[in-house]
Amino acid sequence: MKKGLIFLFVFFAFIESRAQVKQPNIILFLVDDMGWQDCSLPFWDKPTKLNAIYHTPNMQKLAAKGMMLTNAYSNAVCTPTRVSLMTGMNVARHGVTNWTNVNSNTPTDFKDSILKPANWNYNGLTPERFYSEALNHTVVATPLPQILNEAGYYTIHAGKAHFAPTGLPGASPVNMGFDINIGGSAAGHPGSFLASKNYRQNEKDTSWAVRGLEKYIPEDLYLTEAITREAIHTLDNRNSNKPFFLYLSHYAVHVPYDKDIRFYQQYIDAGLTDTEAKYAALVEGMDKSLGDIMHYLEKNGLDKDTYILFTSDNGGLSLKGSRSGEPHTQNLPLKQGKGSLYEGGIRVPMIAAGPQIKPGSVSKQYIVSEDYFTTILQMANANPKKVKQVVDGKSFLPVLQGKQKNVDAQKTIIWHYPNNWTNVNLKGISWASAIRQGDWKLIYFHKQQTLELYNLSKDIAEQQDLSGIEIAKTKLLAQLLTQKLKERNAAMPSWLSTGQTIAWPNEIFELSNTNQVIK
Amino acid sequence: MKKGLIFLFVFFAFIESRAQVKQPNIILFLVDDMGWQDCSLPFWDKPTKLNAIYHTPNMQKLAAKGMMLTNAYSNAVCTPTRVSLMTGMNVARHGVTNWTNVNSNTPTDFKDSILKPANWNYNGLTPERFYSEALNHTVVATPLPQILNEAGYYTIHAGKAHFAPTGLPGASPVNMGFDINIGGSAAGHPGSFLASKNYRQNEKDTSWAVRGLEKYIPEDLYLTEAITREAIHTLDNRNSNKPFFLYLSHYAVHVPYDKDIRFYQQYIDAGLTDTEAKYAALVEGMDKSLGDIMHYLEKNGLDKDTYILFTSDNGGLSLKGSRSGEPHTQNLPLKQGKGSLYEGGIRVPMIAAGPQIKPGSVSKQYIVSEDYFTTILQMANANPKKVKQVVDGKSFLPVLQGKQKNVDAQKTIIWHYPNNWTNVNLKGISWASAIRQGDWKLIYFHKQQTLELYNLSKDIAEQQDLSGIEIAKTKLLAQLLTQKLKERNAAMPSWLSTGQTIAWPNEIFELSNTNQVIK
Repeated sequence: MKKGLIFLFVFFAFIESRAQVKQPNIILFLVDDMGWQDCSLPFWDKPTKLNAIYHTPNMQKLAAKGMMLTNAYSNAVCTPTRVSLMTGMNVARHGVTNWTNVNSNTPTDFKDSILKPANWNYNGLTPERFYSEALNHTVVATPLPQILNEAGYYTIHAGKAHFAPTGLPGASPVNMGFDINIGGSAAGHPGSFLASKNYRQNEKDTSWAVRGLEKYIPEDLYLTEAITREAIHTLDNRNSNKPFFLYLSHYAVHVPYDKDIRFYQQYIDAGLTDTEAKYAALVEGMDKSLGDIMHYLEKNGLDKDTYILFTSDNGGLSLKGSRSGEPHTQNLPLKQGKGSLYEGGIRVPMIAAGPQIKPGSVSKQYIVSEDYFTTILQMANANPKKVKQVVDGKSFLPVLQGKQKNVDAQKTIIWHYPNNWTNVNLKGISWASAIRQGDWKLIYFHKQQTLELYNLSKDIAEQQDLSGIEIAKTKLLAQLLTQKLKERNAAMPSWLSTGQTIAWPNEIFELSNTNQVIK
Repeated sequence: MKKGLIFLFVFFAFIESRAQVKQPNIILFLVDDMGWQDCSLPFWDKPTKLNAIYHTPNMQKLAAKGMMLTNAYSNAVCTPTRVSLMTGMNVARHGVTNWTNVNSNTPTDFKDSILKPANWNYNGLTPERFYSEALNHTVVATPLPQILNEAGYYTIHAGKAHFAPTGLPGASPVNMGFDINIGGSAAGHPGSFLASKNYRQNEKDTSWAVRGLEKYIPEDLYLTEAITREAIHTLDNRNSNKPFFLYLSHYAVHVPYDKDIRFYQQYIDAGLTDTEAKYAALVEGMDKSLGDIMHYLEKNGLDKDTYILFTSDNGGLSLKGSRSGEPHTQNLPLKQGKGSLYEGGIRVPMIAAGPQIKPGSVSKQYIVSEDYFTTILQMANANPKKVKQVVDGKSFLPVLQGKQKNVDAQKTIIWHYPNNWTNVNLKGISWASAIRQGDWKLIYFHKQQTLELYNLSKDIAEQQDLSGIEIAKTKLLAQLLTQKLKERNAAMPSWLSTGQTIAWPNEIFELSNTNQVIK
């Protein structure tokens, strides 16, 4: 019996010491190209027409278990958001202002007749340990998974990476500090979501192939399902003495809208076009994945110790050709969509659940991509001694845990998109910078050389430009935006005609208020 | 206190139930192209000149902890051995009789002026679940890792796979039932062992690139070291409630002999040529990997519960150009080398350590590649209900555990190489079938249409052909070889001149003993 007592003592001492250093598991569930209303869960003060179309019961379940952030933002396109998530740097600072090509040294901007895009970091993110003087057009930083890994986390990448072009160190999630990479590469979308196409485009050009999931082909699993199964399989085989960080970054709901036959027909029956039914099915498949992950956590008693952060990397796609209906209307009442700094391009769903987050709670605190870096490090209690980059993100963990009750209306978020995303020549798509502080948002349109000011609490649709009325607010935000852009060494577009970089937003303010125009 | 007692009871009950189903860990440490004497550990009754050249202290340490098998065999080239390991099928039955190309539908045989190679399975191994009528020139089987995986094992592939060409299901270790794939693909050798070359050949043709190890590039790690570190990293992050199967299948010591500066100079100082010093350094780097794995097991208290099986996939390379010195002499006293059914091509090192294996023991029992499949399943206590293939392998676990004291001299092993490996037109290289029973070995040379008989206990160098003297033994073995080849549906070469398949070995015996010759 004496032996037993000693054993007990040792055992409890062990439990105790583990409790002291307990770190929660963290799941960042990132959806690709999902709009703010592309779900049955309303992120506004009322359900919208779009909310009535989609079926996402698991998002609803997660919201019931945690907190919705109704003013969550991303960047306007994917790689900028992903680099911000991984580095905590604002897009103006990291300079990966547009999506990166699968090929290195190849900017992705469409040709324009008026502006030359900024000299941006089109070679994407380079993890610190691969730093070399020879690399150009790249931002070097200490990535989130590496910090978590060094803090004792088992780090899993599942799905889309898209941090840098093929062949560069940032293309490989294992170089970012992920212990495991499931299907991530330089590709910004899958060749195909279909097992019957081997999750790849064709045999000649396999740049967009999703690799390592071949074992799910005989079961004919849709890519979203295959990634989820493999992620759960990896969790199931992990060392449970370590906390885990799962970056479940779905290729869904980006194009190609391959038909997911599990969910498609009901949307056709509901009267949607073929394209929109495919899109809605892609959304529902993503939601099922969320449900499967939640179920796995519950079944294994992990849900209490695990944070789930759910969000998207930019607003919903609203381009002609890809979506049905009139272009740029797919996110109404939000204006425009992916590629724009109007709300349609940057406002995204956001739900968080986990330790000390009150079930069924809601916050209007506005947050943005780089804030996740700092938030996750705080959740993990991981304070890296040295991080190569200047971190712009602010932790919103106090918001999630109810320690910060009121909206911090002094917080500023800036966006910067000095690129030409696509061939649409429409004010709002591409070529802009913006700032939000409190309820106010100022947008600087690079090509038009104009400023617009909106009060989002009253005008989420951005219909009433108040820049000519709220002069003081316009001036203040133009100055603040200018200051932030300069502070972060933001690269600016230039005029093709003169080669000169465009004016700063505060200069635009001064000029428009003295009735001058510069070009 | 009552709670404590209940807790103790529950805890011990748990220990008890785990003990009942306890399965050992298993490591299959496979070296590529390593000859029988390419180490400081003699696998003969005396040390040889070659043994004096190489430094492999960790192989010696492993042998001291376990058993050496001095009559261990493989096939004459790599893929045939690997397919036998994975399926338990003899090479004549699985029909992947030569190494597979990185491209599908592309046999690897050199053109010959006399014989047409057998219609072999040049599309390699297809795991059962990928079975489809459409696949041709492939063998479909239930692979070892899948069976182990289903029996509760965590299965890790590290290093060279080479089971099937690119794009086919067998190319991907995850399709074979491995939970984790570190660096395995369709490639039979690495583009480069050097981090400075990113472990790949060049940027245009990356078919031989070893992927997923980019994080070791900044430290400039040699490929052998990078694979070992990643394998240990994976073990360290595993779920320790599961037993593991680690298939550590080194790219070493295959060409290219890239200089490993950690070990190279001492061999130059000892008077070796540049080529041979590079080769010896490659061997020593592989031995360090073995040592690192053993150290990891010891440090984590796993060595008592873990089997290590160490062997090679074929005999040492002895071709002109690749090795220094006179070709086909690099394995003396063994005749010829890789690609031959003389002992130089098929006799390999073999050490096994683990539960119930007596330290410092030696067995002369002859074994071959397909026997590992059955042995490992017996070690794992995994009895699959259904296996697609007919299994030829016999477990040698009773030998290892000392339960079978004497050599089973009735055991037969057959080899079958109806292919043209390379451009060397020399009897012994390519084009042969062979059988061993007891001390006797009969070789059938397809092109020469002759039989040779050797007594290996007296003549390991195969210098004295006894086929004209030991007529009865020759007849018996020719019949037995014929019977086994027919039973296993062995594909035979054919005469280019007539299109007819070559004769069976028993026909050769009959003809040579009635003084006739057929062509």
